[in-house]
Amino acid sequence: MILGQVVGTVVSTRKDSGLSGLKLLVVRELDDAMKPTGHLVVSADAVGAGRDEVVLVAAGSSARLTEATKDKPVDSVIVGIVDLVQEHGKSVYDKSVHQQSATSGAAS
Amino acid sequence: MILGQVVGTVVSTRKDSGLSGLKLLVVRELDDAMKPTGHLVVSADAVGAGRDEVVLVAAGSSARLTEATKDKPVDSVIVGIVDLVQEHGKSVYDKSVHQQSATSGAAS
Amino acid sequence: MILGQVVGTVVSTRKDSGLSGLKLLVVRELDDAMKPTGHLVVSADAVGAGRDEVVLVAAGSSARLTEATKDKPVDSVIVGIVDLVQEHGKSVYDKSVHQQSATSGAAS
Amino acid sequence: MILGQVVGTVVSTRKDSGLSGLKLLVVRELDDAMKPTGHLVVSADAVGAGRDEVVLVAAGSSARLTEATKDKPVDSVIVGIVDLVQEHGKSVYDKSVHQQSATSGAAS
Amino acid sequence: MILGQVVGTVVSTRKDSGLSGLKLLVVRELDDAMKPTGHLVVSADAVGAGRDEVVLVAAGSSARLTEATKDKPVDSVIVGIVDLVQEHGKSVYDKSVHQQSATSGAAS
Repeated sequence: MILGQVVGTVVSTRKDSGLSGLKLLVVRELDDAMKPTGHLVVSADAVGAGRDEVVLVAAGSSARLTEATKDKPVDSVIVGIVDLVQEHGKSVYDKSVHQQSATSGAAS
Repeated sequence: MILGQVVGTVVSTRKDSGLSGLKLLVVRELDDAMKPTGHLVVSADAVGAGRDEVVLVAAGSSARLTEATKDKPVDSVIVGIVDLVQEHGKSVYDKSVHQQSATSGAAS
Repeated sequence: MILGQVVGTVVSTRKDSGLSGLKLLVVRELDDAMKPTGHLVVSADAVGAGRDEVVLVAAGSSARLTEATKDKPVDSVIVGIVDLVQEHGKSVYDKSVHQQSATSGAAS
Repeated sequence: MILGQVVGTVVSTRKDSGLSGLKLLVVRELDDAMKPTGHLVVSADAVGAGRDEVVLVAAGSSARLTEATKDKPVDSVIVGIVDLVQEHGKSVYDKSVHQQSATSGAAS
Repeated sequence: MILGQVVGTVVSTRKDSGLSGLKLLVVRELDDAMKPTGHLVVSADAVGAGRDEVVLVAAGSSARLTEATKDKPVDSVIVGIVDLVQEHGKSVYDKSVHQQSATSGAAS
């Protein structure tokens, strides 16, 4: 899986019937300093993720193993909303802190 | 999935029988500013996409999960035509606007 | 799929039995200006491709969905020989023209 | 598989039910000099890996072929803890030595 | 598949049971000039490859389609030992020549 941040949404009216009802989110991949890597992915949302949230994204055939995406033509799915990332014993991302301060630059 | 822009078509007469009847489009991957990343993919078209349209592309085994591509030797398929991409609450791509102005440089 | 150009062949005597009888070709990935990206792949040949030809290459599990590669330990297969690539309404590759002039530098 | 070093953990409360009970570790990919490549992956842990340990990571559908990850929406799994990496007949990583010295900069 | 050169071995005692008995080799990806690309992969060995040998590596689910790797949590496997690579009608790698001279710098 990769770590990503939800930055937006995609609306598509004319689409394969297998995408019907799926929420499609624009996700920026993050590195281990929680900075964008420059890589972008559009992921189906299996967990109700919201804007600016840091999420776990599964790719490939594994993206079809959530209830929402079973047998769908989907190669990327958000499988978790991240609360905490710790590296070398220190917190590099804490959702409760991030919601108050760190997102202010990116989101508002 | 990735966001891409349809820039052309590929014609192949001598091909695996599994590709018969599939329309093959040249798609440029887009970043979150809707600029080309430099990455190119040839995708089967499952939704009737046209030139310059921004599309959603699914890759890997998931590319075989549309009706058009079932059990075909295809690793990339266009699964949706994008109407709107919003990031941080702002529209970064709006098909109706794009059709009038933004494509003029690329398409005409 | 990607666009590639066949530049050579690979001979392997000691190999998994699943590769027996498969022709293995060295393929250079091409970008949308039909220039090499620098990425190389060795692909099984399902269509009788020849040197310098521009081809369509399918990867991953989809590479096993041609008759020649079914259930084989192969992750890349040439599924079509490209006749024409058009972008923005212009031809960027035309096999009949390419055979006379554009390959002269690369092939002879 | 890739070689990676476990640098941290990810906590996610709101997640797909398929991730329940899985330990999710932050892994940095290593190159053949055992230096980070800059690529990061979040992997399910199938072997009880600990911080700073060098591990083997399997990706894609193969990541679902451990007992812990069977049929789970997981595209990356730690399948082994590395004791020794030898290149050109010399040891480039030896866990017993690494535990005493080489991790001191990264971990403490 | 990719072309790679076997540069070493990985020893892992604590590993998923699916890896038992598999020989794991460190492989450097090669470009079309037979130079390392900088990309490294750890591959299961299905053909008895030895150090410095140039090999064919299959990735993804196809890596599980050799007898040695069937249903194993393995995403990369050596499926052939390369004898000869020809590009544009010239030999760019010849194992018999390589064994005498070209490996001397890398291997001894």
